[in-house]
Amino acid sequence: MKAYLNRRYRFSASHRLHSEQMSDAENRATYGKCNNPHGHGHNYALEVTVSGQLSVHGMVCDLGELDRFVNSEVVSRYDHANLNTLPEFAEDVPTSENLCIAIYGRLQSFTPAKLEKIRLEETRKNTFEMGNMSL
Amino acid sequence: MKAYLNRRYRFSASHRLHSEQMSDAENRATYGKCNNPHGHGHNYALEVTVSGQLSVHGMVCDLGELDRFVNSEVVSRYDHANLNTLPEFAEDVPTSENLCIAIYGRLQSFTPAKLEKIRLEETRKNTFEMGNMSL
Amino acid sequence: MKAYLNRRYRFSASHRLHSEQMSDAENRATYGKCNNPHGHGHNYALEVTVSGQLSVHGMVCDLGELDRFVNSEVVSRYDHANLNTLPEFAEDVPTSENLCIAIYGRLQSFTPAKLEKIRLEETRKNTFEMGNMSL
Amino acid sequence: MKAYLNRRYRFSASHRLHSEQMSDAENRATYGKCNNPHGHGHNYALEVTVSGQLSVHGMVCDLGELDRFVNSEVVSRYDHANLNTLPEFAEDVPTSENLCIAIYGRLQSFTPAKLEKIRLEETRKNTFEMGNMSL
Amino acid sequence: MKAYLNRRYRFSASHRLHSEQMSDAENRATYGKCNNPHGHGHNYALEVTVSGQLSVHGMVCDLGELDRFVNSEVVSRYDHANLNTLPEFAEDVPTSENLCIAIYGRLQSFTPAKLEKIRLEETRKNTFEMGNMSL
Amino acid sequence: MKAYLNRRYRFSASHRLHSEQMSDAENRATYGKCNNPHGHGHNYALEVTVSGQLSVHGMVCDLGELDRFVNSEVVSRYDHANLNTLPEFAEDVPTSENLCIAIYGRLQSFTPAKLEKIRLEETRKNTFEMGNMSL
Repeated sequence: MKAYLNRRYRFSASHRLHSEQMSDAENRATYGKCNNPHGHGHNYALEVTVSGQLSVHGMVCDLGELDRFVNSEVVSRYDHANLNTLPEFAEDVPTSENLCIAIYGRLQSFTPAKLEKIRLEETRKNTFEMGNMSL
Repeated sequence: MKAYLNRRYRFSASHRLHSEQMSDAENRATYGKCNNPHGHGHNYALEVTVSGQLSVHGMVCDLGELDRFVNSEVVSRYDHANLNTLPEFAEDVPTSENLCIAIYGRLQSFTPAKLEKIRLEETRKNTFEMGNMSL
Repeated sequence: MKAYLNRRYRFSASHRLHSEQMSDAENRATYGKCNNPHGHGHNYALEVTVSGQLSVHGMVCDLGELDRFVNSEVVSRYDHANLNTLPEFAEDVPTSENLCIAIYGRLQSFTPAKLEKIRLEETRKNTFEMGNMSL
Repeated sequence: MKAYLNRRYRFSASHRLHSEQMSDAENRATYGKCNNPHGHGHNYALEVTVSGQLSVHGMVCDLGELDRFVNSEVVSRYDHANLNTLPEFAEDVPTSENLCIAIYGRLQSFTPAKLEKIRLEETRKNTFEMGNMSL
Repeated sequence: MKAYLNRRYRFSASHRLHSEQMSDAENRATYGKCNNPHGHGHNYALEVTVSGQLSVHGMVCDLGELDRFVNSEVVSRYDHANLNTLPEFAEDVPTSENLCIAIYGRLQSFTPAKLEKIRLEETRKNTFEMGNMSL
Repeated sequence: MKAYLNRRYRFSASHRLHSEQMSDAENRATYGKCNNPHGHGHNYALEVTVSGQLSVHGMVCDLGELDRFVNSEVVSRYDHANLNTLPEFAEDVPTSENLCIAIYGRLQSFTPAKLEKIRLEETRKNTFEMGNMSL
């Protein structure tokens, strides 16, 4: 039987929403206070969903293996970082949507189970999801 | 790439579950303590899920625009209200399921992104969902 | 050694903040949307703190005994009730502060352990506390 | 209109992850500290999702009926139990994935609404899902 | 009877822990990854506790008045800000402890009720408190 | 200025409430389902409160130092353990109250800041506190 495992990670980062392709006034109109010049930050929570048939050990996948992969690919890269200084945001504005795309791309190569979905909580009020399922 | 945005709202309302088409005894049997004559209330949390391709600004949709729409259509209507006194519950009992239908109908006309799902939390134990996806 | 036990209860109730001793305009100015004529409601969480020396059983007090007392004195009285219809709010406006006073009075006679404090959560943003300690 | 109801239950249980088909060293390598000889435990939260057309009472199904079924089939069986001593785990290791399978099997025969999904929270970081939908 | 009101606020900010009075190596040893050159950020939650005798309206103080004061003094100043750029952190490192001191000082002049305590949540794991009571 | 730091830890353990000094019937009457022969388990959350004057680094104490101490003294000892097998519960029943006493004793020797209080969450409904302050 197929089961889904959701595993939760946390990291804190700062960012500033600002596009070089717009004027300062347009940036302000588009991003509001998220455009403040010195940036601001969030505690992000990331939930990674993988699926698979249960192994003989009764598990979707080895949690230690998943943790090492996600920590190496995502948490160690984004925790206590300023997103604007990273190469993946050299051209793209580091919105949480674009951060989702970057994280999703980094997790695609996990092979012990199938990556289904990621869910990124920016604040209690704002959450973003991305994946290859209908929801 | 398609992304989903979940945005969270809160409102407090009171209601009484009582159908004019049933006897008092039937109402009591059907709705239990929710049929108490003077009503009771809840802090509702509403999670609205919209989806879309990312704009050049790297966003599913403008949060301010979504907030103005949801606040105008839903929060300002139901916050600190007695549901039984509203026209949409003149005939239908204001269960959280029927409240879901009413809210979902009111949010359909949002155009900047596609309405996917709503999730209405009545209490920590009871949550209701409605939408046009497989879950 | 003295230990403190906090035990959590939940109930849902409705109320309307309105004082007969004020004009309608004064009521509106004082209570805002909480003065809406048909009332509104909340999911309340109540945390009761009792203290005592540990018994030979290694417990502050018997949880079943505490539950029976709090359920009988408080939860069964206020759950799914309209606070405005209760005698303790015949003269006093059923604010959460006054509800705290009423609940605290009802719990005073618990004898197996010492009542220290109650904490009443009206919403995630508003919490009220009352007790005989410095905080 | 079709609606989904999620209802939340809680139980506490203990388990030890250990397979008779592996050596002690293999068990330790596979299950880590979850293989500790005397077992350990968790507070599980179970969210049951059922769906259906609304009845004339405006409800997906009667909550009391659902509660009696889930409490009888699942909560009373697993609450304050040691999973390793139960017949369903005589051969299968009581991982949360296998516990999901056992719970899902026990809930299949609920008829007043359609069982869609279960979600089992082992800790805040680990959650498991199973069901007959795309997610 | 005296009651305590806790009111919850939220803001997001970024900071970098770095003291000009230490070498780079000492800064790194003292602040760890919080010393990363480009800063990082958090979603802060602030709980403000005030106390007082209940007014004839049955309230510790007017919530709107408290909100206007806290929003004006604290939230509007720190939300979506980089703490390192503010004058109160020109000499003091913007640790959450020092942010507590700054916030507490700004709230002292609230007169409608007595400021008892503030509680600043930096992450789910780290919380700081300050006040004039025994806890 | 004096500040309080609360730091949160988690561990999972199992236990059985049973006293050798009582008959089986008395044990059952006293501890209810917590007396089930094979034990059960919980996810515990432990909040440790320490206080102190701020150092020149603007901190109550070094978080890494506190973590190493609490992990070494408490988390590594109780995580994924069966409390009944530990020497501190050879005579005392491993209630959460007695676990509080054991943990509090183990944390007393922390010197970089003053231990004020511990708070042990057994479930969302039951929390225990112990310390040398008025609450």
